[in-house]
Amino acid sequence: MNVLVLHGPNLNLLGKREPGIYGSGTLADLNRMLEETARELNLELKIFQSNSEGALIDYIQQAAEWADGILINPGAYTHYSYALRDALAGVGLPVIEVHLSNVHKREEFRHHSVIAPVAVGQIIGFGFDSYLLGLRALKGLLDKWQ
Amino acid sequence: MNVLVLHGPNLNLLGKREPGIYGSGTLADLNRMLEETARELNLELKIFQSNSEGALIDYIQQAAEWADGILINPGAYTHYSYALRDALAGVGLPVIEVHLSNVHKREEFRHHSVIAPVAVGQIIGFGFDSYLLGLRALKGLLDKWQ
Amino acid sequence: MNVLVLHGPNLNLLGKREPGIYGSGTLADLNRMLEETARELNLELKIFQSNSEGALIDYIQQAAEWADGILINPGAYTHYSYALRDALAGVGLPVIEVHLSNVHKREEFRHHSVIAPVAVGQIIGFGFDSYLLGLRALKGLLDKWQ
Amino acid sequence: MNVLVLHGPNLNLLGKREPGIYGSGTLADLNRMLEETARELNLELKIFQSNSEGALIDYIQQAAEWADGILINPGAYTHYSYALRDALAGVGLPVIEVHLSNVHKREEFRHHSVIAPVAVGQIIGFGFDSYLLGLRALKGLLDKWQ
Amino acid sequence: MNVLVLHGPNLNLLGKREPGIYGSGTLADLNRMLEETARELNLELKIFQSNSEGALIDYIQQAAEWADGILINPGAYTHYSYALRDALAGVGLPVIEVHLSNVHKREEFRHHSVIAPVAVGQIIGFGFDSYLLGLRALKGLLDKWQ
Amino acid sequence: MNVLVLHGPNLNLLGKREPGIYGSGTLADLNRMLEETARELNLELKIFQSNSEGALIDYIQQAAEWADGILINPGAYTHYSYALRDALAGVGLPVIEVHLSNVHKREEFRHHSVIAPVAVGQIIGFGFDSYLLGLRALKGLLDKWQ
Amino acid sequence: MNVLVLHGPNLNLLGKREPGIYGSGTLADLNRMLEETARELNLELKIFQSNSEGALIDYIQQAAEWADGILINPGAYTHYSYALRDALAGVGLPVIEVHLSNVHKREEFRHHSVIAPVAVGQIIGFGFDSYLLGLRALKGLLDKWQ
Amino acid sequence: MNVLVLHGPNLNLLGKREPGIYGSGTLADLNRMLEETARELNLELKIFQSNSEGALIDYIQQAAEWADGILINPGAYTHYSYALRDALAGVGLPVIEVHLSNVHKREEFRHHSVIAPVAVGQIIGFGFDSYLLGLRALKGLLDKWQ
Amino acid sequence: MNVLVLHGPNLNLLGKREPGIYGSGTLADLNRMLEETARELNLELKIFQSNSEGALIDYIQQAAEWADGILINPGAYTHYSYALRDALAGVGLPVIEVHLSNVHKREEFRHHSVIAPVAVGQIIGFGFDSYLLGLRALKGLLDKWQ
Amino acid sequence: MNVLVLHGPNLNLLGKREPGIYGSGTLADLNRMLEETARELNLELKIFQSNSEGALIDYIQQAAEWADGILINPGAYTHYSYALRDALAGVGLPVIEVHLSNVHKREEFRHHSVIAPVAVGQIIGFGFDSYLLGLRALKGLLDKWQ
Amino acid sequence: MNVLVLHGPNLNLLGKREPGIYGSGTLADLNRMLEETARELNLELKIFQSNSEGALIDYIQQAAEWADGILINPGAYTHYSYALRDALAGVGLPVIEVHLSNVHKREEFRHHSVIAPVAVGQIIGFGFDSYLLGLRALKGLLDKWQ
Amino acid sequence: MNVLVLHGPNLNLLGKREPGIYGSGTLADLNRMLEETARELNLELKIFQSNSEGALIDYIQQAAEWADGILINPGAYTHYSYALRDALAGVGLPVIEVHLSNVHKREEFRHHSVIAPVAVGQIIGFGFDSYLLGLRALKGLLDKWQ
Repeated sequence: MNVLVLHGPNLNLLGKREPGIYGSGTLADLNRMLEETARELNLELKIFQSNSEGALIDYIQQAAEWADGILINPGAYTHYSYALRDALAGVGLPVIEVHLSNVHKREEFRHHSVIAPVAVGQIIGFGFDSYLLGLRALKGLLDKWQ
Repeated sequence: MNVLVLHGPNLNLLGKREPGIYGSGTLADLNRMLEETARELNLELKIFQSNSEGALIDYIQQAAEWADGILINPGAYTHYSYALRDALAGVGLPVIEVHLSNVHKREEFRHHSVIAPVAVGQIIGFGFDSYLLGLRALKGLLDKWQ
Repeated sequence: MNVLVLHGPNLNLLGKREPGIYGSGTLADLNRMLEETARELNLELKIFQSNSEGALIDYIQQAAEWADGILINPGAYTHYSYALRDALAGVGLPVIEVHLSNVHKREEFRHHSVIAPVAVGQIIGFGFDSYLLGLRALKGLLDKWQ
Repeated sequence: MNVLVLHGPNLNLLGKREPGIYGSGTLADLNRMLEETARELNLELKIFQSNSEGALIDYIQQAAEWADGILINPGAYTHYSYALRDALAGVGLPVIEVHLSNVHKREEFRHHSVIAPVAVGQIIGFGFDSYLLGLRALKGLLDKWQ
Repeated sequence: MNVLVLHGPNLNLLGKREPGIYGSGTLADLNRMLEETARELNLELKIFQSNSEGALIDYIQQAAEWADGILINPGAYTHYSYALRDALAGVGLPVIEVHLSNVHKREEFRHHSVIAPVAVGQIIGFGFDSYLLGLRALKGLLDKWQ
Repeated sequence: MNVLVLHGPNLNLLGKREPGIYGSGTLADLNRMLEETARELNLELKIFQSNSEGALIDYIQQAAEWADGILINPGAYTHYSYALRDALAGVGLPVIEVHLSNVHKREEFRHHSVIAPVAVGQIIGFGFDSYLLGLRALKGLLDKWQ
Repeated sequence: MNVLVLHGPNLNLLGKREPGIYGSGTLADLNRMLEETARELNLELKIFQSNSEGALIDYIQQAAEWADGILINPGAYTHYSYALRDALAGVGLPVIEVHLSNVHKREEFRHHSVIAPVAVGQIIGFGFDSYLLGLRALKGLLDKWQ
Repeated sequence: MNVLVLHGPNLNLLGKREPGIYGSGTLADLNRMLEETARELNLELKIFQSNSEGALIDYIQQAAEWADGILINPGAYTHYSYALRDALAGVGLPVIEVHLSNVHKREEFRHHSVIAPVAVGQIIGFGFDSYLLGLRALKGLLDKWQ
Repeated sequence: MNVLVLHGPNLNLLGKREPGIYGSGTLADLNRMLEETARELNLELKIFQSNSEGALIDYIQQAAEWADGILINPGAYTHYSYALRDALAGVGLPVIEVHLSNVHKREEFRHHSVIAPVAVGQIIGFGFDSYLLGLRALKGLLDKWQ
Repeated sequence: MNVLVLHGPNLNLLGKREPGIYGSGTLADLNRMLEETARELNLELKIFQSNSEGALIDYIQQAAEWADGILINPGAYTHYSYALRDALAGVGLPVIEVHLSNVHKREEFRHHSVIAPVAVGQIIGFGFDSYLLGLRALKGLLDKWQ
Repeated sequence: MNVLVLHGPNLNLLGKREPGIYGSGTLADLNRMLEETARELNLELKIFQSNSEGALIDYIQQAAEWADGILINPGAYTHYSYALRDALAGVGLPVIEVHLSNVHKREEFRHHSVIAPVAVGQIIGFGFDSYLLGLRALKGLLDKWQ
Repeated sequence: MNVLVLHGPNLNLLGKREPGIYGSGTLADLNRMLEETARELNLELKIFQSNSEGALIDYIQQAAEWADGILINPGAYTHYSYALRDALAGVGLPVIEVHLSNVHKREEFRHHSVIAPVAVGQIIGFGFDSYLLGLRALKGLLDKWQ
């Protein structure tokens, strides 16, 4: 089973950007942990990060041809990118939305996700574990649906 | 007379994405119909699709040099891209905004267009015909203004 | 094919009322152009104008017996007449909503249509051409649905 | 005891209009049932339907001279006709507001009644029974107040 | 100089309807006082009352041919009749809006007038004197503008 | 046919609490009238009052096993108890919501019911008669659905 | 009969400040016209202008001892000075609120008056005539109440 | 390590209540799966369900003495129980909030959680797996914090 | 004179829960201080704490028989329990609402009290002294009213 | 210990202004009672009343040099004077806000205090006792902080 | 060229008031720096501070006779003083609005300026440099406009 | 000291786009003036313009390695690009936000900046001088912080 993992804008700054909020691990560290968990769960990953809304949409559209599910941390696009939402709804794959920090404890604008209504579910607030639990949740869904 | 036709994000998925809403014709089909109508109306078309807000803006700015009008389906950018709006207002060409589906029958956020106040008019809800009527409307405007 | 064309309140003032916004053509001029386009498209028209919400509703209800579609410019009733909306939804005919001016460039209250969710589509901002394009759009729908 | 029964806009479409919501009985059927219940309760009815806000107000004003109470389904005027409200408040008769469908399960705009604050009470959601229960409620009130 | 005096819905109930709010004088009493003041000011009046929005609009439109100004108490239509507003704006005559009671002391919905932005001015809260002062104000305007 | 009648918080104060609003009859009086009407309609009643949201929910859940319908006056829980709403929706029985006073004439917060969207209908403003009409309405529904 | 005439902040700029909105007459001109009308109506005036909220309140409080009524143009304090409102309500004299320009045609914040609910009435939009009509209205009230 | 698992109101209906939304497994099934996963993760569970806000708060307070973390599905209390929130914040244990269904796809009122700001994180939308992933997330937190 | 002192949800955690906000004194300490002040003021107290909305309402209703006034800290129920409010209004005793912390310095939702409109007054922000001042205030009221 | 007691706008009208709301005692009566209580509590008072926002701010700033605390009834400035708030926050003394009437029972605009977030606490609704309890509360604070 | 520099309420507390936000320099320090920069730019300054809205307005009105521009830090009046705004608009001089701290990082109410729409521009967040840059900006404007 | 100057979307149209609002100077003219001022202030500039949100974010992230501060005119992204905001917050450099026109005089949506809370300060409304003053402000900050 193939899974697309998408990191949205500024996630390439992980470990450098506001470590009080996001922790000190880097994106490379996170990706290594994702690959490990994927091996354990027998999943094939493609991982992509971009700061560009358009590039993320392009990548999602192409995933329609090979992926069985999408794990996405849409970063700040979570709060306004209806274009990203349309792309995710358009490819018709199961989507899981993850966030490192508990967005509900932060600024008002971070409480609202325009992505959530087109996702299967959300995992929020567990640092890197949000991603790893997300892979596990996706695996569970795909097994059930086969 | 030269016309720029712009397709916004996810319109390249036409025919694949949620056919219950958008129909089963593809973007290629639509473009073929646009070219046909253009020939009938004696218009020269350039057609461009992109998922990237920036790329759409770039294209609009360049149109200032050769186009007489713009026909645009801004897709989800309709609802929040003030940058696109500024580009359209900036080039000073007549703009016609079209939508395939009746956005007023769908989610709340689709009811509001930030593009409409800088367009001449809107055509909404007639599938591919929204575009074809839009070309006709643009032709009418350009004839009148010459 | 039979079409009911409805002009809402104050449209009988056309040519006299605020020509800066609505142009200098009269309602009679508009109706003549509608008849011409109808002939070209092989449509039979009945045209009715009223300032009274109740009279417009009565007319819509009677149209259920002979019309194949409705073209309506609801004038100011666009923004609050849920009774008109219920009448249009009640007769079950395809409805096209047109406006002469681009309502999204005008006062806040004109940005919202209570009619739009029960129409097939909207054509806004092209002066008399809004109506003529509307006839064409209706013709297209009726041809497709037959 | 004399009762005015008022049917607001589009209620003459009953049985034809959206039977999924309003059922397949016609207005004539409903009126027959109202007359039957009235006979049982020893009430004299006058029944009036109009699509016109002004005509409904005229009728309400005349009722001041002969009626002991009013049973009204204001249809879509429920949600915005402050003029109807003023008429009902002005004649000083007990008013009961009824609705066929449960308006609280439908579109947001149907959740708010401008009539309710000048009515004695509301009966909502029981189809034709809303009217019949309403007659019974009115009878109860009039008996108590005599 | 000719003046149209318009009484909106339910004003024919004057003297009968909620005398605690509107006083015990009747519409005939008010009209008599209007005629007296008109004679004093050398104005020619036509006075019209209707409960129907459409009828009021019809009357306003016809006034364009003979009146020099309009004095209107739009009653409850004050708060939502954009059609009335459009008619008043459409005829291009000076309009003065009057209210018997101080609407700002009453229900929230009475605090907002959709008519005010197209009127020259408002006179609110002086009972019949609101009308008489309104005639005087209109006379002042017409004298100045001649 | 078995019916659960639920009285929400503070209804045990009936006759003592604000008699200007709720009348001088006690809960015992009301229950006696309910039993009488039930006998006439051939209904079997269980009647329960509690000030506790949890106890009301427990009771509703148990009703799933023996009741054919629920008549509820949710008292102040009407305005915020989504838990009560979920319980009512969860048991899948027809629910009728009643209120003694016309809540739309009282404080703003009483105008909104979170229960109404999961009820079949509402009866509001007729004092004890709200309950008795409610029983009648429920009987009508159950007869029709058998 | 004694009347206090109060001019709020910036009214001393009359004739200099934005003449497009407020006209070219000065405050001295206006006061002269007020005195003339007062003589005609047999009223004794005290006229006071201040830019200071506190000074206006002081003056209002002192008026309780000698004035029979207050004519006030609260200027920009109209929109937020609850202290001024409390002072006017506190002295218990009839208050008439006037405005030179039609505030409902201007910025949103000028549409709301915190003074209106404690005034007898408002006269808005007639330039200096707003004041003169206001004096006349006050005279009418005082005559009636004597 | 000891974990308190709390099921809020109506979760005892699982398997019976709206299976289209919540699935057909019962609360007993869910609890069995929780115990299994707990054994695998070496966690000791106490599981408690109540429809009563007060009882849930009592239980949370007692957990302060023996539990290392709390896993809670607050059901409908999610949306308004500030008392529950205060209890969770008061005991100072890590809290994980779970929901069976994707609340962001459902009614507006379900989009807002008053619990989320005092939780470590949320897991939403994966049916029973929401709970199991939640246990895993809690285990991860407790290991890290030891 | 007899006084009911009610502590709402989570106040039994006093001294343990967030001492930075609520101080380190326990509920027992507070109750001891209340008894002391009561003796000084010659008041007889009954003190009750519960986390259950229903239990608090039951207790309030019973107080009608023996108490002369109620001192209540409604805890988080302050912000949404209209049922508590109705109970307090229903028993007709003077109510004083107290809060330990200055709720206006904390989260937005704590700024609004649904209890305040049915209380005589509020004392907010003085820690345990809020209660002691509250007793004193109640004593003052009862003395005055005797 | 020195205390500044500030009376905001219109409090000099006490005993004259709306005695139904504010009682019949005068400001002199209140000040006498304040002095008495101050003697009992061993506090030195300076008392100041002004209708002017600026004068109140000047006084507060000077208090920084000699006062240990401030007791203020900001009158209508409570609801909008951010300048007063900044002055109180700027001098860094403990502030207690008092109100004679229960503002939460009155007009909507009186429910919000811009002063409360910079005060230690509020005492509302006990007439003159609000001030006397406030002095006591301030004494308590100052004793604790010494 | 002559410039009026206005310091609004509480700016005389500079150096004493909340130095964490406003720095430790005093108003005298700031004025000295303003004079220095003015000399460098060849500007003549008059500097005025007041806590009184009325006094600030008086000063602004007098400036019309001798000043070429105004530099103002309206302090807390920024957020509600429409009277100040009208004065600034009334004198017709170029106005520059400055703030010491970045108001957009502070309380919600500080994000909105009622002065900004009548100013040429704003400089926010640079401490004393906000003023000095403001002088420079004003100099630039005046040079350009001469 | 190194400074990144960022021009957001459509600023490359300067001199061509709406010269009534933005002036007739081109981006090249502006950049030349920026370089001149930089030389005077001894700053090293890199200047970058893009219409693409992603490209702007990429550039900001790279600036972390060499720049000491950022001067940005985010164009229309000011109003919705939380991704840009996160990038600016993430790199931890001092940011100054500038705008050519006074955004507070234009459309409502331009009044709100999502960038401002992560900037040191804003300079708005001085045309090209906004940038030059911004450089000066940045120089001031960097000198102070060294």
